[in-house]
Amino acid sequence: MIYFDNASTTKPCEKSVRYLNEYLTDKFFNASSIYKQGIDNKTAITNCKKLIAKTLGVEFKDNVIFTGSATEANNLAILGSVRKNFKKLIFSAGEHPSVYNTALDLQNKGYNVEFVNLNKNGSVDIADFKNKLTPDTSFISIMHVNNETGAINNLNELISIKNRICPNAIFHSDGVQAFGKLKFTLNRDIDLYSISAHKIHGPKGVGALYVKNKAKLNPIVFGGGQEYNLRSGTENVAGIMGFTGAIEEINYNNSIESIKSYIIENLNPNFKVNGEETSPYILSLSYKGINGETLVHMLENEDILISRGSACSGSKVGNRILTAMGLDKDSVVGSIRLSFSRYNTLGEAKIVTQKLNDFSTKLSNL
Amino acid sequence: MIYFDNASTTKPCEKSVRYLNEYLTDKFFNASSIYKQGIDNKTAITNCKKLIAKTLGVEFKDNVIFTGSATEANNLAILGSVRKNFKKLIFSAGEHPSVYNTALDLQNKGYNVEFVNLNKNGSVDIADFKNKLTPDTSFISIMHVNNETGAINNLNELISIKNRICPNAIFHSDGVQAFGKLKFTLNRDIDLYSISAHKIHGPKGVGALYVKNKAKLNPIVFGGGQEYNLRSGTENVAGIMGFTGAIEEINYNNSIESIKSYIIENLNPNFKVNGEETSPYILSLSYKGINGETLVHMLENEDILISRGSACSGSKVGNRILTAMGLDKDSVVGSIRLSFSRYNTLGEAKIVTQKLNDFSTKLSNL
Repeated sequence: MIYFDNASTTKPCEKSVRYLNEYLTDKFFNASSIYKQGIDNKTAITNCKKLIAKTLGVEFKDNVIFTGSATEANNLAILGSVRKNFKKLIFSAGEHPSVYNTALDLQNKGYNVEFVNLNKNGSVDIADFKNKLTPDTSFISIMHVNNETGAINNLNELISIKNRICPNAIFHSDGVQAFGKLKFTLNRDIDLYSISAHKIHGPKGVGALYVKNKAKLNPIVFGGGQEYNLRSGTENVAGIMGFTGAIEEINYNNSIESIKSYIIENLNPNFKVNGEETSPYILSLSYKGINGETLVHMLENEDILISRGSACSGSKVGNRILTAMGLDKDSVVGSIRLSFSRYNTLGEAKIVTQKLNDFSTKLSNL
Repeated sequence: MIYFDNASTTKPCEKSVRYLNEYLTDKFFNASSIYKQGIDNKTAITNCKKLIAKTLGVEFKDNVIFTGSATEANNLAILGSVRKNFKKLIFSAGEHPSVYNTALDLQNKGYNVEFVNLNKNGSVDIADFKNKLTPDTSFISIMHVNNETGAINNLNELISIKNRICPNAIFHSDGVQAFGKLKFTLNRDIDLYSISAHKIHGPKGVGALYVKNKAKLNPIVFGGGQEYNLRSGTENVAGIMGFTGAIEEINYNNSIESIKSYIIENLNPNFKVNGEETSPYILSLSYKGINGETLVHMLENEDILISRGSACSGSKVGNRILTAMGLDKDSVVGSIRLSFSRYNTLGEAKIVTQKLNDFSTKLSNL
């Protein structure tokens, strides 16, 4: 099997599985217990937080909160920040549904929510961003790397604009497709940053939110007061340790870039790449006149797994993002997404490229 | 080691660990993917829901929603049900913090929230329940089994009262300490029922909410639309399969009852049992004049793990519940909680009883 759907989810690495199992079985204790086994588990959780802070390049000051998913981390960042007196909230048109639909919910509740356009590269249109930002903007959420196209937003540039126009606005970024994949130091003026374990060879069911200033955040789930009273629920220590294993294995020196460039260089030129200056982990393609979904299933028959786009809502989300980038309807219908991991090989890229060329030719001749 | 803190968390059983690992590694696929591996995982998730419905004795009609914890399930049940026009909301004074603190949050937001008293048995005071219920009551949440004392609320009786006074009120019950432990068929007039995997030898990070009528529930987390659009986030298929393994191993024929009665019968009579007609899985004790926390740590030194009470907020929660039952301050200070699992033995009970008698005598002679 060739698995080119790593933006959807990844296979946990050996170390992640090992750590997780250690805390699933022998060290299953409740991390909020007052005996040593509980305290040790709490320390293990704190050590994972320190590792996340270190990987982000920020100082650790009890400023990482574990959640049950990155979706929950995004919801906590937005719904936990919003106040009744917020004047304006800014999101990008390219956000993941866990941000986009939360923004729509706020809009339905009467908040002034505006969406910044994407340019044809798939990243946020800087002119439109400048235009929509006003001194009374209270909250901004712009993703780091787009999950459909891999388009990278320049957070440093966005932050510097934000600091000029509305320095007190809270700035959140969904970092799910960036963390552990792109090498970067988190801009120190970013207030909130969401990450996910299962996108980097850790387990599903574990997300985290970096929070610069906990005093500005309210919980969205109430209970026993875990996670600095910001996210209650028995700590998922096994899942968190699975995340630790995945983070320890992060390796920026891999062959991802060569896989993507091989495919682009050897594909039938009728395939157009959606987006420019994108993450090496994601390749969005459009072939006008064929149906992307048919192509996905033809490849599936050859034991090659790719996707239409985000698994989160099938092709509907892909439509929203690609349409926001200015693609015409035929290009949207003819779109597919390949997404890679460090476990993929150039050999796999060659097979997939060949199959894509064969099948697309067949489909376009129908 | 003797582990008598199973109301806090349990060790996952072999089958739970095995199922979880199968879906953590070989079958790691995103359950919302459109290819066969994704569809198969979705089916596996649906099968777990069917198993939960069967265990509850209710018909399966896509009415089970997986969450990241029972805390989240309780929050979803309450915050997802509440509407601006709700006139009165009723909770018990004995609720777990994930219900109690959510109720307090609603009270702070201006809702009319009332708490029903506990009687000295630890269960809900029926007279007070009748008294506080009015025809304009919109929502009721009463737990099935109390996590501090094991006190069992008679849900059938509560429902029949509710049906007479406010038939249209939504009735939720936190079933975390009942599901898989007490044999029962869920009353068909219960609207919402929360359960947890890690309390029945499944993994942490997985809860579920039975929802009789999905149309009455709103999501509290927004995103890709998973779980009938009521709980977004990539499905934690490995965790859910770990839950499946735990449910398959539920066995009501075990020696729990004999463990608890051995301890009660052989303890120094200065230990008073808190609560009456309680779950066989939980034993709350008070010894006036000694400090429960000291006792916990003395036992810990002998490799025996018990607790003060709920791990969720240390002894503070225990204080609230025991105080609501009418215990005096000394009895609260002198309280401990033992909680059992089917993996405990009578031999362990004998050792712990002996140690409790020795240490309490030592402490009371200080």
